[in-house]
Formats: sequence, C-alpha cells, structure tokens
Amino acid sequence: MIKIAILGLGTVGTGVARVVADNARQIERKLGEPLQVKSVLVRRFKDGPYRQLMTDDFSRIENDPEIRVVVETIGGVEAAYEYTKRALEAGKHVVTANKQLVAEKGAELLALAARKKVHYLFEASVGGGIPVLHPIRECLAANRIEEIYGILNGTTNYILTRMVRTGAFFTDALREAQAKGYAEADPTADVQGIDAGRKTCILADLAFGHEVPPEKVPMEGITKLSLRDVKIAERAGYRIKLLGRTVRMPGGGCTAYVAPHLIPEEHPMANVEDVFNAVAVRGNATGEVMFYGKGAGELPTASACVSDVMEALTTSASREEPLWSADGEGFVDPDELHTRFYFRIEGSLTDAAMAFGQVEVLSEDGETAFLTERISGTDARQQSAMLNVLACMRVMN
Amino acid sequence: MIKIAILGLGTVGTGVARVVADNARQIERKLGEPLQVKSVLVRRFKDGPYRQLMTDDFSRIENDPEIRVVVETIGGVEAAYEYTKRALEAGKHVVTANKQLVAEKGAELLALAARKKVHYLFEASVGGGIPVLHPIRECLAANRIEEIYGILNGTTNYILTRMVRTGAFFTDALREAQAKGYAEADPTADVQGIDAGRKTCILADLAFGHEVPPEKVPMEGITKLSLRDVKIAERAGYRIKLLGRTVRMPGGGCTAYVAPHLIPEEHPMANVEDVFNAVAVRGNATGEVMFYGKGAGELPTASACVSDVMEALTTSASREEPLWSADGEGFVDPDELHTRFYFRIEGSLTDAAMAFGQVEVLSEDGETAFLTERISGTDARQQSAMLNVLACMRVMN
Repeated sequence: MIKIAILGLGTVGTGVARVVADNARQIERKLGEPLQVKSVLVRRFKDGPYRQLMTDDFSRIENDPEIRVVVETIGGVEAAYEYTKRALEAGKHVVTANKQLVAEKGAELLALAARKKVHYLFEASVGGGIPVLHPIRECLAANRIEEIYGILNGTTNYILTRMVRTGAFFTDALREAQAKGYAEADPTADVQGIDAGRKTCILADLAFGHEVPPEKVPMEGITKLSLRDVKIAERAGYRIKLLGRTVRMPGGGCTAYVAPHLIPEEHPMANVEDVFNAVAVRGNATGEVMFYGKGAGELPTASACVSDVMEALTTSASREEPLWSADGEGFVDPDELHTRFYFRIEGSLTDAAMAFGQVEVLSEDGETAFLTERISGTDARQQSAMLNVLACMRVMN
Repeated sequence: MIKIAILGLGTVGTGVARVVADNARQIERKLGEPLQVKSVLVRRFKDGPYRQLMTDDFSRIENDPEIRVVVETIGGVEAAYEYTKRALEAGKHVVTANKQLVAEKGAELLALAARKKVHYLFEASVGGGIPVLHPIRECLAANRIEEIYGILNGTTNYILTRMVRTGAFFTDALREAQAKGYAEADPTADVQGIDAGRKTCILADLAFGHEVPPEKVPMEGITKLSLRDVKIAERAGYRIKLLGRTVRMPGGGCTAYVAPHLIPEEHPMANVEDVFNAVAVRGNATGEVMFYGKGAGELPTASACVSDVMEALTTSASREEPLWSADGEGFVDPDELHTRFYFRIEGSLTDAAMAFGQVEVLSEDGETAFLTERISGTDARQQSAMLNVLACMRVMN
C-alpha cells in the first residue's frame, strides 16, 4: 500500500481523491500495489467523505514517513511554497497543478528536489489534462526546440469563440462565461493574460533551460479587443486567438509573451474553440506537433496529477539534473521578434503605405485595417508612431 | 561516451544517424555524456559518411559490450525479429519504428525485455514523430482508457484530401501521391488499411493490456471509396477519413478495426489534411485529448527513435511489467459496436425506411444516401440484406 497526502480540498484536490478511488484498479495494476490517500490538509474541517483523513497541521504530513508523495493543490505562492519546500526537504515527492508557484519558484524547487533525489512534477500546470510538458521533456528530447505556442487559457478562448460566433461584445461574453462556470467571479488573471503568461513561462523554462521570470514577460489579455477587429479578421480569413508564445531567437536566447494574434483559418489552431486548449511545439527534427484537449476541469487536471504521482513512484529521480536553472539568462525582449502585424487605424490606405510601405488591405471605410510585411515589434511601434492606431496585433503563420 | 548501433540504413536509419549528429549538444546536455553511433548493420557495403561504421555481421554488434542500445530500422518481421531477440538477450535496449514487428511480436519481445531488465521502445511506430504511445502510457496512466481512434496513415489521408479538394478520382490521387513521394511504388499496405491496422493493434495492446493480433482486426482501406460518397458527405457537412479505432466494450474486452468513416466537419479531426496524422484518446478522467502532427518522414520518425534511446538510457527498466500480455484475451468483433451508419443504395427513401425505420436523408436522385440511427454492425448488415447497397460506412461522432 502506497500512501499519499493532498494539500487543499478544492476542485483539484477533490478530483485527485476521486481519481485515486475511481481508477484504483488501473492504478494498482501499473504500480504493483494499491494507492491510498492517507491525509488531506485543510484550513477548516468540514463534513464529507474525507472527514476522517483531514488535518489542519502540515507537520503531521511532513513527519509521516509512510507518506511518499504530497499533491499540492492549494494554489498561489505563500503556503503552497512553504509546504512544498518542507515536503521536498522531508524527502517526499511533490506533485502540483500550481502554475503560479512553478512559474515563480520552479527553478529553486527543482534544484531542491534534485538535491533531495525526489521528484517535483507539474504536468497539470499547463494544459490541465492534456499531456504537454512530459512529451516535450521525454518524447521530443532529441530535438532542439525552436518554438512553442498555444491557446493556454480556456476562459478567454470561450469568450473569443462567443464573440466570433454570436457577435457578442466582450463584457457580455464574459458574463456568459461566468454564468456557465467557465470564468471566476474575479476573472482578472484569465482575461488579462496572466494565467496564460505563467504557463508560457513554464513552457519557456522547459524548452530553453533557463528560468524566464513572469515579470519580464509582456502579457496582454483580451480586455482591449474590439468586436470590429474580430469581424474584420473573420471576413479576411483569420481568427483572433489569445496565444502564449516562446521562441528561440536567431542571436541566441529566447523570448516569450502573451497577446491576441490573428491566425489563418486553415491553421489547425484556428478551429480550437470554446474551453479547449492547444499547444504546438516546433522541434528542429520532428517539425510541428500539436496537443489538444480540455485544458481545465476537475477530473482532467486531477488525472494529470495522479499520473505524475505514479511517475514519481515508478521512475528514479537520482540521476536527474534540474530541468532548468535559476539564472534567468538569455531572455530577449519580444520587440525583437519579426512577424506580420495587423493594424486598424483612423486614416487612409495612403497613411498606412506611407508608414509601412507595402501593406495588404483588409478593410477600408474611414478606418483602414491592413497587414504589414514581417517586421520587428520595435519597427511596428516606431513606424506607426505618426498614425492614429486603433488596434495592433501580431499575425501567426 | 555512450555507444549505440543502427540496424539498416534506409530512410529512418539514416535519419537516426543525422539526428544524433545534428542535435549532439542537446542530447549530451540531457544524457550527461555524448551519444555516438558506433556500428551500422547493412546488407551491402556502400560509400558515404557512415562507411567506416558499417558491418554486415550482426554478431559483432551483439557481442560488443560497449553498445548499449540497438536501433532496429530494418522493417518487416524476419531479420528484424531475430536481431531484436538476440540484442535483448544480450542485455541491450532495443528501439524501433517497426510497427509490423511490434504489432505481431510485441508481447513476446516485451516479455523478453522485461526478463532481461532492458527496454523495448517503439514510440516511432505510431504517429512517426508525434508523441502518442509515451503520453498514453505515462501521462494518462491514471485513466481508464475508453477509446483511441485516429488518422494513422499519411498516404491515405493525402489521397482523401486530394479527392475532397480537387475532385480527383482515387487512382489519380494515388498517382499524384506517388509522384510526390508520399506513396510507395507498391502502395498496398497503405491503401488497403494494413499499415493503419498494425498501428491500431499497437494502440489497442497498450490501452487494454492484451495483445490484439492483426489477423483478428478487420482492415478496410480506401480502394473501394467512391468520389460520389466523398461529395455527398461533403455537401451534408461531413468529411470522409480512414480511421483506425479501438474501443473498450460495455460487456468487457475491446474491439478494433480500420475503415473509412464519415466525420462531422466541426470535429477537430475533420480538418486534419494532407500527410498529417492525428490520434485522439478518450480517458474516463481526462476526457478526449488529441495529438497532431506529421506522421512520417525521415527526421520526425528518427527523432522519436533517438528520444526513445535517451529514455532507455535514463530510466530504469528493472521494475517494469510488460505493457501487454500475449494471451490475446477479450477481443470482441467490431460488428458488436454501435454507431450511426452511412448507406448509399440503389433504391428509394421508402426502401431505406422499410429496412431501417427512421433515417436521415443526405441525397436522393435514383440512388438514396442516408444515415441510420445508432445500430450494431451486425444489424447494419442484416437490415440492409434486402437492399442494393452501393456504399456503407460508419459515422464517427
């Protein structure tokens, strides 16, 4: 009998307990013995099926030699950070879905885990139940990763889908998402791109081996997105999606950012709708591969955590180098990245052409919407300095 | 310095040597020491960059204690089977892209590898460079797998894409695929569904734990597919795709088969075009996740092999149970699987309704095309026995 503890009993924590119970037979077959939740850390005791497992004292978990894996589902940094450190110090594997903690403290926690020869695993932190980090680490190990980008936040993708399909304004689509339980009462982290930004940091860390601190990464959400641009893009054969993106730069180092992009409608990611997530990885040998599925939800996220628990228990941690270093080296400002840009300006095609030379017009009616050639972010800003810019987005292709 | 051998120097074998050389830095960083191809087994010596590594005597590889991993890229069964057994017996890990060998002899070779405490890995056998088997095994480990289906053969998907896009007949589209190097001179294994069938067997083995012998699995290709059905499906909002599919059955056991299916155009797999592959996995906790990318090609397939080499070298094989058993238990005839069916008959809607009751008409002009309710394959055959059936396909939804 292998025993684990769960910290926190919210959506993910409850899901972990359910998956361990519901799939006990599958899990036992693969582990060779049963898996059991022995303790659940809560702040306040409450009735329910896990009542007799509850404790409000972390030191009882920390000092319990029977507990081999701790699943941290508290979220945020403070308590989660402290308990994770203490659990790793105590020689226990730690598994989490906490993207904020991994993005902000990942390098330190990975180094600690390596020193203690235990695992710190967080597949569920990006893409929920979709396998993403593990395949990048293992299956694409023989590749030099050139780029990773994706639809990393289901809430914003749901809102964008509603705006495209029904012509709803942002605020109405957000209210609808909240009514359906797809957006939280305080949707800031989702709609301002912060959630996608943390996931982008984790992908960049993993792909390029150096910690990318969230504060360096420009994160733009969808709050400023206008329905006009959604419609112009649609008519021109594009969809607007909020992408997190990290790219190996020609001069060395990598960049990362989150922003709405125009994507050509024939691109496989253009048809990723509602609360679905998708992550594309471009390796120098394997080309582009894409992972797709529901990026959130109690059971998908929980099942990714439980799979990590099983991996921690069945693979050796003794030979592993930390996946990335804390040095934060080699981060390049995304303004240096070249792409095509979409602009909508109050002005004429002549104004656009004077600023950018050759452009592709998408619409003209007092306002002019157009695509530039491939230019850097710096050029896009400088060349548009004299224009009255109503909207500006990168084009993904 | 870690040394490996490659058996065969065709497309995949050459690709493996190239990936090892091109990505030496990435590989060394992850392994902690350099990886080197020491020997290459060929039938006939030929000039080229690997001339000095060539041998035509397998026993020199078998008896070389320096060689820790053998990458088998010969293909087929006979020699590949013999050398794989001898390499495993000699305590070497074996990595392969050989779907025929894995589908036919996988259980035996996995049991041998487990006995010798070495790895037998074959990520590249399904989906080429797309991570599929590894994520199913590791990342979805906490799930009960309910179903796996996919577009597993790039050649046939290219042909179908041409038929849809340009209205080309099957034979013309096939010739075009051959001219582009997407189809072999003898395309039998591809167009008759045998290649997809072997991959389906491997997916079924892995998902359900018992060997599914290829000879039990009905494999239907696209040679009998008519352009008429492609067009009727298109107009009704469906695409026709060749799917390999394996499903856990309600009464226990699993079924597996390969056949063309109608897929609703809004389904993410409907837009997988040209030589791309996609595999969808449905787990009881994680829901449906999809893996997408180029399913073939020298470098993608080779990079999956090299990643397997790295996995073999960095993870312990000592605790692993064989992934599936040789007993072949629990296979259920796909005739028991319930789906909607597409029929095109020479006859009227009245004929269709007399045979099937409620149907959904797709087209009527002398011939009648329609969809049935969800019925079993047996029912579909029996109830259509009195009809003049011109085409019959399952519907995926």
